[in-house]
Amino acid sequence: MHVCFIGDSLVLGTHDPEFCGWPGRLAAMALAVTDKELNVYNLGIRANRTNDILERWPTETARRLPQDQDCRLVFSFGGADASRPEGYPRVDAATSVSNARLIMQAAQAQYPVLWIGPTPMHKPEHNQGTAALNQGYARLARELDISYLDVFTPLSASHVYLEELQAGDGAHPGATGYRLIAELVAGWDAWRAWLR
Amino acid sequence: MHVCFIGDSLVLGTHDPEFCGWPGRLAAMALAVTDKELNVYNLGIRANRTNDILERWPTETARRLPQDQDCRLVFSFGGADASRPEGYPRVDAATSVSNARLIMQAAQAQYPVLWIGPTPMHKPEHNQGTAALNQGYARLARELDISYLDVFTPLSASHVYLEELQAGDGAHPGATGYRLIAELVAGWDAWRAWLR
Repeated sequence: MHVCFIGDSLVLGTHDPEFCGWPGRLAAMALAVTDKELNVYNLGIRANRTNDILERWPTETARRLPQDQDCRLVFSFGGADASRPEGYPRVDAATSVSNARLIMQAAQAQYPVLWIGPTPMHKPEHNQGTAALNQGYARLARELDISYLDVFTPLSASHVYLEELQAGDGAHPGATGYRLIAELVAGWDAWRAWLR
Repeated sequence: MHVCFIGDSLVLGTHDPEFCGWPGRLAAMALAVTDKELNVYNLGIRANRTNDILERWPTETARRLPQDQDCRLVFSFGGADASRPEGYPRVDAATSVSNARLIMQAAQAQYPVLWIGPTPMHKPEHNQGTAALNQGYARLARELDISYLDVFTPLSASHVYLEELQAGDGAHPGATGYRLIAELVAGWDAWRAWLR
């Protein structure tokens, strides 16, 4: 099975001292529960907004996914859209959901896809932004019949995750936070179904 | 510092149970000896030949490397060129070195670059192929004044590395082999200079 993980710096694993983020940890965990040979590509890019992802995901995945094999995509984005380096979101919520629609519709037409939602942020306005995207994306996922994992809610209730955000740059956790995200995905029925 | 590691399945870390390959391990080791914030992208693709890398490295790196920051490239390839799925090399040695010239000349014109050579293979003909590329690339690197690390020679003398090849698919090591490669790069003056 060949899987591309596509998204922003939370997918990449920015500030992960092990430099593999949650996708790498998720794949390592998967080895224990599947006989499938896993080929995993981390296509997270720091600061990537939905419009950046929309532009590059088709070519970057096509180069990596052999046409005659079992290939799947996992998307996770939104944090960069909601970030506010100039005092307002880099991508407003409506446009973000609209971009997400274009990404996910095209992706599901070609591959099995899973969608992981955005994560909590330390700064309140940034966090309100990712919370709103979490809602908008979840609604869109239901409409498109794509399996969507809300990680925002459980991570918002995790003292460890929030403390790591606060101790870091406010947007990225550390090793424990990335492990928590991996564990949420590892326990998700939709992902587990992929491993059977 | 932003670093893209570009190459084939040995860069990607195919069959690494930790799914980070030597670049991820190298970056984790680097944290102990540098104050620089490291942003690392693994752009290894399984089976990527030099012509594949020549075609995609400019766009994939440009998307990831912010123009106003300290950005560098590390290349490692050759194993896929020398592989012989049909009984002859997928890319003959002369063409491989010629492609390498195009890649490395263009890369060094834009970024600081380092070049890690190809690794030993279990099958004798495949191994003779990567040995020959190691020589050809080293000679080209001297001509272009690019720092080149011969990992073929020390890994060929490593019982552990060769045993992992034999126990696996003959081309890719396991966790220990990937760690050995990372250690070779970590101890290399040219890489250590980047961390100062």
